[in-house]
Amino acid sequence: MTTPAPTAPADARHLVLTLSCPDRPGIVNAVSGALARRGGNITESKQFGDEASGLFFMRVQVMTTVAREELEKDLAELARTYSMTWSLDEVGRPMRTLIMVSKEGHCLTDLLFRARSQGLPIDVVGVVGNHEDLRPVADFYGVPFHHIPVTKETKADAEAQLLELVDSLNVELVVLARYMQILSPTLCERLHGGVINIHHSFLPSFKGANPYRQAHERGVKLIGATAHYVTPDLDEGPIIEQDVTRANHEDSVETLRAKGQDVERRVLAQAVRWHAEHRVLLNGLRTVVFA
Amino acid sequence: MTTPAPTAPADARHLVLTLSCPDRPGIVNAVSGALARRGGNITESKQFGDEASGLFFMRVQVMTTVAREELEKDLAELARTYSMTWSLDEVGRPMRTLIMVSKEGHCLTDLLFRARSQGLPIDVVGVVGNHEDLRPVADFYGVPFHHIPVTKETKADAEAQLLELVDSLNVELVVLARYMQILSPTLCERLHGGVINIHHSFLPSFKGANPYRQAHERGVKLIGATAHYVTPDLDEGPIIEQDVTRANHEDSVETLRAKGQDVERRVLAQAVRWHAEHRVLLNGLRTVVFA
Amino acid sequence: MTTPAPTAPADARHLVLTLSCPDRPGIVNAVSGALARRGGNITESKQFGDEASGLFFMRVQVMTTVAREELEKDLAELARTYSMTWSLDEVGRPMRTLIMVSKEGHCLTDLLFRARSQGLPIDVVGVVGNHEDLRPVADFYGVPFHHIPVTKETKADAEAQLLELVDSLNVELVVLARYMQILSPTLCERLHGGVINIHHSFLPSFKGANPYRQAHERGVKLIGATAHYVTPDLDEGPIIEQDVTRANHEDSVETLRAKGQDVERRVLAQAVRWHAEHRVLLNGLRTVVFA
Amino acid sequence: MTTPAPTAPADARHLVLTLSCPDRPGIVNAVSGALARRGGNITESKQFGDEASGLFFMRVQVMTTVAREELEKDLAELARTYSMTWSLDEVGRPMRTLIMVSKEGHCLTDLLFRARSQGLPIDVVGVVGNHEDLRPVADFYGVPFHHIPVTKETKADAEAQLLELVDSLNVELVVLARYMQILSPTLCERLHGGVINIHHSFLPSFKGANPYRQAHERGVKLIGATAHYVTPDLDEGPIIEQDVTRANHEDSVETLRAKGQDVERRVLAQAVRWHAEHRVLLNGLRTVVFA
Repeated sequence: MTTPAPTAPADARHLVLTLSCPDRPGIVNAVSGALARRGGNITESKQFGDEASGLFFMRVQVMTTVAREELEKDLAELARTYSMTWSLDEVGRPMRTLIMVSKEGHCLTDLLFRARSQGLPIDVVGVVGNHEDLRPVADFYGVPFHHIPVTKETKADAEAQLLELVDSLNVELVVLARYMQILSPTLCERLHGGVINIHHSFLPSFKGANPYRQAHERGVKLIGATAHYVTPDLDEGPIIEQDVTRANHEDSVETLRAKGQDVERRVLAQAVRWHAEHRVLLNGLRTVVFA
Repeated sequence: MTTPAPTAPADARHLVLTLSCPDRPGIVNAVSGALARRGGNITESKQFGDEASGLFFMRVQVMTTVAREELEKDLAELARTYSMTWSLDEVGRPMRTLIMVSKEGHCLTDLLFRARSQGLPIDVVGVVGNHEDLRPVADFYGVPFHHIPVTKETKADAEAQLLELVDSLNVELVVLARYMQILSPTLCERLHGGVINIHHSFLPSFKGANPYRQAHERGVKLIGATAHYVTPDLDEGPIIEQDVTRANHEDSVETLRAKGQDVERRVLAQAVRWHAEHRVLLNGLRTVVFA
Repeated sequence: MTTPAPTAPADARHLVLTLSCPDRPGIVNAVSGALARRGGNITESKQFGDEASGLFFMRVQVMTTVAREELEKDLAELARTYSMTWSLDEVGRPMRTLIMVSKEGHCLTDLLFRARSQGLPIDVVGVVGNHEDLRPVADFYGVPFHHIPVTKETKADAEAQLLELVDSLNVELVVLARYMQILSPTLCERLHGGVINIHHSFLPSFKGANPYRQAHERGVKLIGATAHYVTPDLDEGPIIEQDVTRANHEDSVETLRAKGQDVERRVLAQAVRWHAEHRVLLNGLRTVVFA
Repeated sequence: MTTPAPTAPADARHLVLTLSCPDRPGIVNAVSGALARRGGNITESKQFGDEASGLFFMRVQVMTTVAREELEKDLAELARTYSMTWSLDEVGRPMRTLIMVSKEGHCLTDLLFRARSQGLPIDVVGVVGNHEDLRPVADFYGVPFHHIPVTKETKADAEAQLLELVDSLNVELVVLARYMQILSPTLCERLHGGVINIHHSFLPSFKGANPYRQAHERGVKLIGATAHYVTPDLDEGPIIEQDVTRANHEDSVETLRAKGQDVERRVLAQAVRWHAEHRVLLNGLRTVVFA
């Protein structure tokens, strides 16, 4: 399993800056000037001004020669001037990730395989299951498995345990990899922008339970999957990625499910990669994806 | 404009039989036996048994040597035995088609071009517009254009005119090629199974008005189009074909609309071709498509 | 990992018949008649007459009530009359499969996962590697791993070992899951129609070594993968399935490779499923796929 | 035919700058600084540094308040410093385009329709046909049609006529919309980077004549089309865009051709749009597409 990593390995001098702020003339020049003054060489740069929201978004990769702290000071000043929200990270640094599962293993297996062999830049620091079924998969990849069962009565306790894990493991990203429990609104808000879910339909079609059954009943000719950030509004969070595959009259609910699993794992892996590479910025209920 | 036709030209000895009936053992053998006894050679055959509805569907192309009437007698008898709904037609015979439009010409232009140059087996016997805008397109292709304006007050009259056209022109298929009026329930039922609409979204997402605006607001990463039979339930008719294309954060409602038009015309043309070739059979609220 | 299997479990009364023969009138009726006389109920049937080669192909699933031997006698007789090549198997019976690998694990991992959790109807009876790298993956899935290194000098011996395994394990299908060795012409002919390879390009583009490098140099905007039967003509065997994914100017050879692995494993799994379900028939240098 | 244009109408103050030069630190800052000093507001910006060639590419849209000449002076100076190749144009200005055809009308019809109704930013100043067949299409859209027949003997004369048209009409872009003649090397070089061809295969597969026949013989499961710049090396020019559609064993050469025409016109229109919007930059034998 020696596939070379497509993401460059982390390098303390290669940084990725993301920012958003109210749009106005001069931002690009101010940012590129700040980087140039510190001897930075821009290796990738993408930007977007949203006319609807009046917001400006930017993602810059820069090779620096000075200490990161110097850059951060300059950026903090810029941020005050332009009312920016910003973040700075090393390009390729694996994001500390917790994966949550129930019984279906296709997304978990896929994410762990890609993290080990295909350069998906996440460091899976734990797997949480409300069932024991997928413990062997975590074991195989050498990732600690935490069994946190959930019932109506224990839900609050279970979420408290989860938060404890998030804190103690310094988790940056939580991935719901076909986790069949709904997070409480409080938890959603606490982890805002840091939880990605895969829904097994092409949202906004077929929200809620049993989307493949719904798809079968409606007789659609394509089925899909949607990766989105989790918000208190179930299946309404900002969409990161979607894809579809063909279906036809011969498909049963079962064959739709099997076909759909392929789409689910591909869409989820793509969304996780983009997030971990700081390519996804929130724009209200939508996302900007600098793919 | 001499592209050869992909559908074989009509030939009185090459017939296409479609049928549906309650599923039970022996149907395929009974049908193929009836055709064989008349010296028929099966050139294409597709079938489907739907476990959910208990119905059986079949489409057979057969090269015959005897008179069609002989075959029809045999089939009528079979139909009694098996409670079949069936139809027999010549392979490749162009279906008499009326196209209804408003102001946007991409679907009309495409259907007329394909009928003339790409062997789409329809004979467009008229174009009906509730606006005059697309008359020149019909003129160019030598198809009579009928201007039937519709207001709330004149709707009943307009539909009466339409039905008169359908009858006088022996119309077999009505295509709503971005016709921006809703047909009355009475008309829908009168033309049941004979009206195809193109909806500019991936149904069941974004029913109703302004689907591209809805898609933009929800921030979806794919937009689509759906060709379906028209029923009194708006945007709920049996789906014939769907497809999608990618969208991203840079898309405005306007660019979504432009991208979507490509999908719309492709999906509509595919659905019309399949219908005209007797490849689409109704299965309750869904379709069987013997593509 | 309890995903329900989309392929129905094997059932001694549910049979799948495939056949090919010179095309002539009456075949369908003769076959369906033979099945009907034994009380068989056809649950799926697909056929194709190739005008170019003059051959007829058919795949029928039938639910029987009589002993399979009875049916086989009838079919043997039919086969004589129509010069048929035919096979009969139980629907859903897992095909005994040997997977051959080198160092890259994406295809192996995927096939083993699908066989265990997604109803891919293969029984993986062994994994052969010319390197040791992927032994842990085979171990995890409880499949015996055989290390058969290959050098120029030992190639003949290695192939002899392989053939011994094929015989002793009653292997029906060999899958080259990114196995980086070329099989000798003798071996190709010995296993004709029973070896599936995944080539990491959209054939016939980029045959031979380093297709992603070739693709990068040519500046293509899509990269692909091809699953095909192995023949003595390298990369020229009958194609079973192909698919593509988008590339752009930002892609390096490395990112093309990572994107391509996704397509490779999907295309290979699809081809293996169709083969194991007896949906692929050879038509000279091409295939008929009753998908 | 009133579809709103997705490309903004030309506006003398909204400019698009494209440039390429040897990559080195500071380019982005130098460019954005030059624009900022003239009060320019960047509305869209994309860039790419190619490690392989060591070249840097950039496309910037900027809303200016000063005269374009001022900007041009600054850019000329920058160009000297950085050895830049650059161009400046108004965003959305329709590019003066000559379309060349033979007998098949699907690409011509599509381009003319999109130019009139979908905001494709080209101004079709003439259609050249080596046959008369498509004159009516040009007439319908009010575009002058020039019949320039080509035989082996008259080829040089025909190309001279063509060049005369290109000069007298101030043609900026020549589109070979299924023009079945090969341009001479001299002409290719004379119009270098200004001629787009659509080839009816997924290059580099099936170069040369009859690609659909070649595809049929090889039994591929996808067919495609490729839009590329024309160079003296036939079918080897830099690729702008490619796409594919599914094929199967039932397809004849004729049905492949019909399916393929859909892909051809879509791919060609996309390439023409990107070129006309100055989104395509040459990078040796490849292209950078700032889509």
